[in-house]
Amino acid sequence: MSDVSVPPIDRHDDPTPDRLTVPPTGSSDVDSAALRINGERLTRRLSELGEVGGLEGGGCARLALTDADRDGRDLVITWMTELGLDLITDTVGNVTATLAGRENLAPVMMGSHIDTVQTGGIYDGNLGVLAGLEVIETVMRSGFVPRRPMAVAFFTDEEGARFAPDMLGSLVYVGAMSAEEAHDIVSIDGARLGDELERIGYLGSSPCPGLVPHAFIELHIEQGPVLEREGRDIGVVTGVQGISWQRLVITGQSAHAGTTPMELRHDPAYVASEIAVFVRRLAEELGSPQVGTVGTFDLHPNLINVVPASVTMTVDLRNTNEETLKQAEARLVKFCDEVMESEGVTIEATSLARFEPVDFHPEVIDRVEDEAKGQGLSTRRMPSGAGHDAQMLARVSRAGMIFVPSVEGISHNINEFTKASDNENGANVLLQVVLDLAEEKP
Amino acid sequence: MSDVSVPPIDRHDDPTPDRLTVPPTGSSDVDSAALRINGERLTRRLSELGEVGGLEGGGCARLALTDADRDGRDLVITWMTELGLDLITDTVGNVTATLAGRENLAPVMMGSHIDTVQTGGIYDGNLGVLAGLEVIETVMRSGFVPRRPMAVAFFTDEEGARFAPDMLGSLVYVGAMSAEEAHDIVSIDGARLGDELERIGYLGSSPCPGLVPHAFIELHIEQGPVLEREGRDIGVVTGVQGISWQRLVITGQSAHAGTTPMELRHDPAYVASEIAVFVRRLAEELGSPQVGTVGTFDLHPNLINVVPASVTMTVDLRNTNEETLKQAEARLVKFCDEVMESEGVTIEATSLARFEPVDFHPEVIDRVEDEAKGQGLSTRRMPSGAGHDAQMLARVSRAGMIFVPSVEGISHNINEFTKASDNENGANVLLQVVLDLAEEKP
Repeated sequence: MSDVSVPPIDRHDDPTPDRLTVPPTGSSDVDSAALRINGERLTRRLSELGEVGGLEGGGCARLALTDADRDGRDLVITWMTELGLDLITDTVGNVTATLAGRENLAPVMMGSHIDTVQTGGIYDGNLGVLAGLEVIETVMRSGFVPRRPMAVAFFTDEEGARFAPDMLGSLVYVGAMSAEEAHDIVSIDGARLGDELERIGYLGSSPCPGLVPHAFIELHIEQGPVLEREGRDIGVVTGVQGISWQRLVITGQSAHAGTTPMELRHDPAYVASEIAVFVRRLAEELGSPQVGTVGTFDLHPNLINVVPASVTMTVDLRNTNEETLKQAEARLVKFCDEVMESEGVTIEATSLARFEPVDFHPEVIDRVEDEAKGQGLSTRRMPSGAGHDAQMLARVSRAGMIFVPSVEGISHNINEFTKASDNENGANVLLQVVLDLAEEKP
Repeated sequence: MSDVSVPPIDRHDDPTPDRLTVPPTGSSDVDSAALRINGERLTRRLSELGEVGGLEGGGCARLALTDADRDGRDLVITWMTELGLDLITDTVGNVTATLAGRENLAPVMMGSHIDTVQTGGIYDGNLGVLAGLEVIETVMRSGFVPRRPMAVAFFTDEEGARFAPDMLGSLVYVGAMSAEEAHDIVSIDGARLGDELERIGYLGSSPCPGLVPHAFIELHIEQGPVLEREGRDIGVVTGVQGISWQRLVITGQSAHAGTTPMELRHDPAYVASEIAVFVRRLAEELGSPQVGTVGTFDLHPNLINVVPASVTMTVDLRNTNEETLKQAEARLVKFCDEVMESEGVTIEATSLARFEPVDFHPEVIDRVEDEAKGQGLSTRRMPSGAGHDAQMLARVSRAGMIFVPSVEGISHNINEFTKASDNENGANVLLQVVLDLAEEKP
């Protein structure tokens, strides 16, 4: 049972599916390797959840712990409840639904998040949760009972779009931050996380850190263009890139664009541009998987005929290799020193975020790859460029991820789209990997 | 008489100066070459006008045709009226005050503007108007009556900060735009220029184009750092740089900063940065007086972990040589084409302003230089990097300008400052140049 209040469901309006009856005993007569998920049901649930906080033109907005997030949570819990799963909500609002196994062992866990950014798509996060639910329903409907329990979770505030940092719920789940500390985080709109959890009815009592699973697998959309460009069905995710976020405040001398000779300028916009060009060259020189992005420029003032007094910019550097990422950071510092000196400006750098790269478990990576190939799907080993809950779970458990293609790589955007057939492929790989893991003995 | 309503002045509170009585006849007993302006009076008027629309910390805000601009106009007209000058206001709100000469010839005209930008200094424009008034008062008080009339004008909306384009009043004065067209211009706050003129009581009846002066001289602060850096007293302005303002809208492909490999990016922020660096290189390569500035960057979106979909930026190119300016523009187009191609983005360029360089009249330039040197002042010939009303008057009349040093080159800023002694130097050069010109026969 869930320890959160589930809104009453009018069963008269929606007579199906009935609460499933799980066979009480083992089920050696079921060929579990032949099981396939129900793609239509998965697609329908993705659409239905996408309508909660739905945006004009597609996509949805369910910032963490808002009313829209509560409505999304309530809907997913309705589905979990209809399947008769055991629900627990922990002290940071993470919800886990568990199907009992033949033995009382650590569960194989699936999951992701259902919060979104302000202009989010309907697949990011949601796919991992609803595919996990679909895997469990498929197994239940087959009559097969795996050795280990199977669980699906949705973690609070993965996006970090309302409460920083991102991946907050899974961070607390694995014990890397206390629930008390998390409760005191204040959102961009001034609300306290603990108060918001209580307000929407998702301040649970299950303690954090939570139960350590036997393994954790997250299905997610790629959010990048690689799989589509290469025509691959499944991304076998080997790890998560390390992330280095810096803010640079460059202070020069505001001056008239017409009356100030070039040699007398201390132009922070020019310096910012040199740095942005350097970031591109640096990433190209270090080679894939190094990436580097300047996504923000703020000029003060921002006027056509004035050399600005200061520019604030950000630099986002990522690599799967910590040594190379450190090298990229060091070279950026050196370049900033040089250009600062030559232009006569000052540069103040602040680290906004720094995560080391995460390696997923080799056994899980191999299983995902083998299973996908066994299903006749084309695969590509690749790192994740974005952060995901699975990287937090990797701190305490064997963990891995499965990627499916994002059309044109678009994500965090109402035009985010993954084909139903690709979602179905990913969920079928997830199903079989989880079934395999769930048969493992202690 | 002015054809605008002047607010009643309480003479009881301010009994001096009395209305001056001009000697009715010639004055061969005055050594006009020995005349010097009253620096204290000039400084006092600059301060007093600077308090109208005054800002905390210094500077003032008198956007064209606002209540603050009206109050500033009223104050200057009070001083003009106290001197008994003939005032006319034209159909675009330019105000001209004239002192009669010994002969009814075309006047020697001085002037500038008293509107300011939102965070303006108290010298920009105001100095040219109040120094012109000071020159006239000095001549009147000496008893000397020059051959030609002497006039001082303040032109409407020189800054262009409320109504585009800038130098609007002088543009209409010389007949390059009709008053009717000017009246229909709508401000950044949605007000129609003609309505605002009427509202503040400065819709005059004197026709445009206005009287063509015998010559026009504008004293102005440099608004750049050159004179101060070189320790020169007076800038002998040879002309005004041609200006080319362009807006570039660069459209690429928004993408996730972590998941999108460098080689698949179409990053408009990177392209904008390459262009900004190119503009700097171009200006350096073409050499002084070529200048080039990127003063604005607007990224959409402007997020640390997103390659933006589009960037809007501006490029400000200036040169005194039209051919070189055209070459700079052409090379920018070529560079944009190349980087557009290589990155797979589109660039849409719009011209926001294009003025050809203006050469001031060689005789006026020589007179300014000779007179300054004759007064023991150090000089430097230089172009103006900013636009000024004198460049409009140069279309119909011999015209020239005198610059005085700006401390640290700061302008359009509450910290704009020119030393009182420098203002006095400039006004004394203005005085003698005007006296010389005013003795010229038809």
